[in-house]
Amino acid sequence: MGEFGLINILTEKSIFNPAQVIKGVGDDAAVIRVDGSKLMLITTDMMVEDIHFSLTNSTFEQVGGKALMVNISDIAAMGGVPTQAVISLAVPAHLQIENLINLYHGLTTVAEQFGVNIVGGDTVSSPQKLVINVALTGEVEENKVIYRSGARPGDVVLVTGDLGRPAAGLLLFNKPEARGFLDQAGVEMLQKAHTSPQARLKESQLLGSMGSLTALNDISDGLASEINEICQASGVGCRLWLDKIPVSPWVAQLARGVGHDPFDWALFGGEDFELVFTASPARVKDILTIGEQEGFPVQVIGEIILQSTTPRVWGVQNGLKDVPILAKGYNHFK
Amino acid sequence: MGEFGLINILTEKSIFNPAQVIKGVGDDAAVIRVDGSKLMLITTDMMVEDIHFSLTNSTFEQVGGKALMVNISDIAAMGGVPTQAVISLAVPAHLQIENLINLYHGLTTVAEQFGVNIVGGDTVSSPQKLVINVALTGEVEENKVIYRSGARPGDVVLVTGDLGRPAAGLLLFNKPEARGFLDQAGVEMLQKAHTSPQARLKESQLLGSMGSLTALNDISDGLASEINEICQASGVGCRLWLDKIPVSPWVAQLARGVGHDPFDWALFGGEDFELVFTASPARVKDILTIGEQEGFPVQVIGEIILQSTTPRVWGVQNGLKDVPILAKGYNHFK
Repeated sequence: MGEFGLINILTEKSIFNPAQVIKGVGDDAAVIRVDGSKLMLITTDMMVEDIHFSLTNSTFEQVGGKALMVNISDIAAMGGVPTQAVISLAVPAHLQIENLINLYHGLTTVAEQFGVNIVGGDTVSSPQKLVINVALTGEVEENKVIYRSGARPGDVVLVTGDLGRPAAGLLLFNKPEARGFLDQAGVEMLQKAHTSPQARLKESQLLGSMGSLTALNDISDGLASEINEICQASGVGCRLWLDKIPVSPWVAQLARGVGHDPFDWALFGGEDFELVFTASPARVKDILTIGEQEGFPVQVIGEIILQSTTPRVWGVQNGLKDVPILAKGYNHFK
Repeated sequence: MGEFGLINILTEKSIFNPAQVIKGVGDDAAVIRVDGSKLMLITTDMMVEDIHFSLTNSTFEQVGGKALMVNISDIAAMGGVPTQAVISLAVPAHLQIENLINLYHGLTTVAEQFGVNIVGGDTVSSPQKLVINVALTGEVEENKVIYRSGARPGDVVLVTGDLGRPAAGLLLFNKPEARGFLDQAGVEMLQKAHTSPQARLKESQLLGSMGSLTALNDISDGLASEINEICQASGVGCRLWLDKIPVSPWVAQLARGVGHDPFDWALFGGEDFELVFTASPARVKDILTIGEQEGFPVQVIGEIILQSTTPRVWGVQNGLKDVPILAKGYNHFK
């Protein structure tokens, strides 16, 4: 049978929302019934061994799960729900069958969690490195889609969860001696944030159903990059209240220990897969209430301002001069 | 700007069927209007440098074009038309901006030819080899979708075009001394079949519109593999009349020159991207007429038989014992 037949068998067991699937794996293309009253979303993400993941730090199961999760996060960032995935793998010869089974177990665990069907894919040889590509469709009602481009001056900027954990977790992999600054639970929590991020799909649906969000991104490339994208797409600027950017105690503790600025991780680390979004100040109370009721943190971190030129995003801290926060690079402000 | 911003700019110019695209590149996912009266198709294909293509043999433009073309062929093999593509690239550091521009030129030339929108993608770094993944959606009316599984005993087996050119072309790249067996036009024609295959989309639409095809595959992995897939999915067998398998004079001439069996290329070479399909014998005359009128070759090459076990596909030749033709491997029959 070999690896390639195996993938077919594994994929056949990956239909978690069968009503839409007329034909999954086993023909030249999957055949899907679509709901014509909704819009289709489509996104793709490629992960390359030793660029995006390390098989020293992550299990195959985590690599598979993350590859799908980051795409689900993109669909959540549009206000949609994910539907069909196709998976491409370039597999080096030294991989074992068990490795692929575990990788697929990671994929299907996430697929099942979010009701995604894996309806096809392509498995090929790789000369050296493992490469995994996921393409994912989603659907959204036309009046529920949330773009980057809707932020207006006067809106507030909010973020779910806290930021910087995955960057801190990666440091813990790369510098094992830094683990001594945390207890075991803290080390595991931060490392898991790097290897097994969670997409905020439920949260996006809850917030989106309020009809209050004017712009929305998921934080894949770091808060600084994402809020710059929102400001550029919307033609506005932003003041970020740096003291309000949520950072977990573990991240703060590790940062103190290694002498690193925790805001560097929170602003530029990336892969948080939290949601950053804007809304009218009149809706903030309801948004915070939803977060409390449903058990996810939401924090106001800034305000949208009139700003027609770059730099668009400014870091504001009590008693200090405002500093520009660029999408990449970091002007240290202390 | 760099390579990654470049790809965004290149992709923004890749919308060739704008009516369906509400938002292309520039947000977390593309937003597409779908026709709810049709079914959606989705397929994906990954190509890895030095496994699927060589930058010695192919230009970047050819690599880009082929990556999209092979996916279009998959959509054609379902009776559908392609609609939206997302492109993932893993780019090694040594590539030049011009290389990527040329690769995208190849992609967009094919996209324009077939009315496909490139609505998104992901561009990442690669440690060494160029990797390109295309995921492509398509659409088809529910009563027009053609599966592998519909072949019935008594049906005839037909193929478009002729087979074996890409395999012969690859040999001409790998063994330059073999080029002497052909004139320059022949060498170029066969090499082009390898580097720049053409999907039979128009032909699939014309044949599909007759409502006569009972099963359909595109020939990506070789005729032997594809007809075995049809037979297995349909629960039938097949007698292939080996003398009828179309092989171009160039392929035959090169095969004579190098002492190779041309049927080996035609049956097992693959990447022909011709269509192999089945139909009731009562419809053959109309099918051949369509081919003549529209200017594409169609050839009857066998018949579907009652056969409930493997081997399902048998090669038949005048005066010789029938030989099993397996999906992979080759039992030489002379």
